[in-house]
Amino acid sequence: MRLVTVDDISAAAERIRTRVVRTPLLTARCGDDDRPLWIKPENLQRIGAFKARGAFNAIAVAAANAKPTAIVAYSSGNHAQAVAHAAAAYRLPAHIVMPEETPSVKVDATREYGANVVLCAAGERETVAARIVAETAGVMIPPFDHRDVIAGQGTIGLEIAADLPFVRNVVIPVSGGGLASGIGVALRALCPQAKIFGVEPELAADTTEGLARGHRVDWPVEHRNRTIADGLRSQPSDLTFAHLQQVLDGMITVSEGEIRSTVRELAYGDHLVSEPSGAVALAAYRQGSTPPGPTVVILSGGNIEPRMLREILAG
Amino acid sequence: MRLVTVDDISAAAERIRTRVVRTPLLTARCGDDDRPLWIKPENLQRIGAFKARGAFNAIAVAAANAKPTAIVAYSSGNHAQAVAHAAAAYRLPAHIVMPEETPSVKVDATREYGANVVLCAAGERETVAARIVAETAGVMIPPFDHRDVIAGQGTIGLEIAADLPFVRNVVIPVSGGGLASGIGVALRALCPQAKIFGVEPELAADTTEGLARGHRVDWPVEHRNRTIADGLRSQPSDLTFAHLQQVLDGMITVSEGEIRSTVRELAYGDHLVSEPSGAVALAAYRQGSTPPGPTVVILSGGNIEPRMLREILAG
Repeated sequence: MRLVTVDDISAAAERIRTRVVRTPLLTARCGDDDRPLWIKPENLQRIGAFKARGAFNAIAVAAANAKPTAIVAYSSGNHAQAVAHAAAAYRLPAHIVMPEETPSVKVDATREYGANVVLCAAGERETVAARIVAETAGVMIPPFDHRDVIAGQGTIGLEIAADLPFVRNVVIPVSGGGLASGIGVALRALCPQAKIFGVEPELAADTTEGLARGHRVDWPVEHRNRTIADGLRSQPSDLTFAHLQQVLDGMITVSEGEIRSTVRELAYGDHLVSEPSGAVALAAYRQGSTPPGPTVVILSGGNIEPRMLREILAG
Repeated sequence: MRLVTVDDISAAAERIRTRVVRTPLLTARCGDDDRPLWIKPENLQRIGAFKARGAFNAIAVAAANAKPTAIVAYSSGNHAQAVAHAAAAYRLPAHIVMPEETPSVKVDATREYGANVVLCAAGERETVAARIVAETAGVMIPPFDHRDVIAGQGTIGLEIAADLPFVRNVVIPVSGGGLASGIGVALRALCPQAKIFGVEPELAADTTEGLARGHRVDWPVEHRNRTIADGLRSQPSDLTFAHLQQVLDGMITVSEGEIRSTVRELAYGDHLVSEPSGAVALAAYRQGSTPPGPTVVILSGGNIEPRMLREILAG
């Protein structure tokens, strides 16, 4: 299996340069002296999450090869908005397959970018998406199991290497693993002194278990769905798992309570709105699970329902 | 009266380059097609507001001339934290005079940077600060009535000119006027096509009235204190008023309700926590008061009490 390289990521960075926000590193209120802390705030991407990077790169590659007739994706989360937004920027029709139970605010946000949203039963979304690809002769952009998507997410690693070349620890949320795969590849090449940590909720720690065992493990979806971090309920593919095995120095798990208190800390201390999934890397830092040295935590996204934000802020 | 020049601002930018966050321009959910919209998120400065820029520049100038024995300031708001933070970075003792009724969260935040906080009656803070300057042979850093402070705030204008050279409208909160003075000077020089708008709450619109009359006017402090935007209750000095007369194309006022709904929009739509004062420029845009063309609104700060944030988000 050929893994993504830092050259793939550099090429992605050139493709998406004018399309995504070059996020700054922000020092954080809760940083301590032994572990100087920076936040990489990917919630500031227009669609509210790092997913913009992979989607723009994958669609740019597809558009450069032969202009696609349509872009197709399945997602109930941030990938849906990312693909809808990127397809619109390339003036390509987008069909996004979403489970029927997707909150209407996410369906509406995806439609606002001009995408055709197709609702279906949760278990059928891959089948439905495949049918649309066949019908439209379209190009499928999967949420993480794709080299161009991984390379796009990896551009975050290039930016960290440029802004903080002496970084010692980089802490990254893990779900399907595309984000940690891309950032890990970039930093292994450019900042070999840096240790790369993945973070999962305790309630969806399939990758933590899988890396310990040396092979992918399946957790029942009803187990993974227990965590409030709805963006971290996926599992790696063979492709992303192979990257994670190569680039990660360790995994850290965090509790639901730590996730919630970190969403509060980000809002009150750092003026950033995070979704629960976006807060797990900082939660790992706050519970003392990362070693000494300059540390970057990835705040992966900010798309949280208003009602849930109010409930979490109320403590 | 000698006004600040764009060369003063360029020199300030060089001084503070490694000290403050180079904030990105962010597109916003509520932008419309006729008026493409970008937010300049100064709430992402470590101290939560643009005030870091002026404080770092003024203290850098003071430290370059002859190392001061102490830094002194009076403020109940973001300037207090900015001066405390900048003085600590230069390893200078800081004495910050604050009114006795300052919320303890702001006093604590100022002390966290190592400053000596001196509490006094609200009407006596300038007298007390002057006494400390005399006793310590210290240097006073006023919140806006100072050329180095204005030049520091103006570095925001340089960044806008670099990132969006074709900008047509720049919309800026006005209180003491240092922020709008500095940004206005920079953009008059670098983006002469841009129109510069100041924004005040209707309940603290002394500058709107003063510019219309052609001279400063005083609003009773108890009138200005009615607005929820506690950072916009000051009035310009002769120095800042002279700048505003020269650089502003117009003033816009916003209601308390519009300020509150804009704080909600920034949190839910753009993942940014704003204090009420920080939201007035976007409020002016949202109520349709700015002309067509590419538009930048300054989000000046995010320091809001948790209780007030929860109350505003609840609508």
